[in-house]
Amino acid sequence: MIFKLNDKFEKEFHISGDIYKGFINLFQDNNPLHVDELFAIGKGFKGRVMHGNILNGYISYFIGECLPIKNVIIHSQEIQYKNAIYLNDVLYFEAIISGIYESVNAVEFKFIFKNKESKIISKGKFQIGVLL
Amino acid sequence: MIFKLNDKFEKEFHISGDIYKGFINLFQDNNPLHVDELFAIGKGFKGRVMHGNILNGYISYFIGECLPIKNVIIHSQEIQYKNAIYLNDVLYFEAIISGIYESVNAVEFKFIFKNKESKIISKGKFQIGVLL
Repeated sequence: MIFKLNDKFEKEFHISGDIYKGFINLFQDNNPLHVDELFAIGKGFKGRVMHGNILNGYISYFIGECLPIKNVIIHSQEIQYKNAIYLNDVLYFEAIISGIYESVNAVEFKFIFKNKESKIISKGKFQIGVLL
Repeated sequence: MIFKLNDKFEKEFHISGDIYKGFINLFQDNNPLHVDELFAIGKGFKGRVMHGNILNGYISYFIGECLPIKNVIIHSQEIQYKNAIYLNDVLYFEAIISGIYESVNAVEFKFIFKNKESKIISKGKFQIGVLL
């Protein structure tokens, strides 16, 4: 198998206005935490909180486009949200292969997103299958 | 708390061309499984497989817009992909409250997506926090 235990992948993602507005246009999640600056500040945040599921979109891109092979499919994902993300945050993403299951052609990754202050934004794991 | 154990919520989601193209435009996941009909068929699917993370976008919408209160935030999500989704599929979504943790203002939901043939597309759980 092309994947090896502990292989590490790194990416950077920018929570741009286009990503933020595009996500809202696509999924219509206009919860006040995401769109109302004063509401978000009133709840203890620095400003409007970006949608956590933007990160799952980045994971889709990572799996579909950034691996050494393209014949892959997602089996499962888990994500924990640890700190809020804000407009224009630049996030560092790291994924490490944490398990290889050759008899079922599956590979497990652990991942983390950090912001520029090295605060953990979110962490989790996902499993992909290699399509034969 | 406004939420009660076993409260059930139902929604329907349509995997339209706009959702499919919008997701690709937003996250740039042009993996051949998603965009190349012949590639997908060659791997045993009925056609281009829609991105699983479209479902996580729907979950964002559900949490942000479809609950009886708006002062909520996602803590964590887990999803298992069981069957492929295709363009124009109409998905039935059901979420049931599986845990209420008043001392930390958290509520856990189990969810399922099914297609029109009642095939399970995906299942999982998520936890939200109620913002005071």
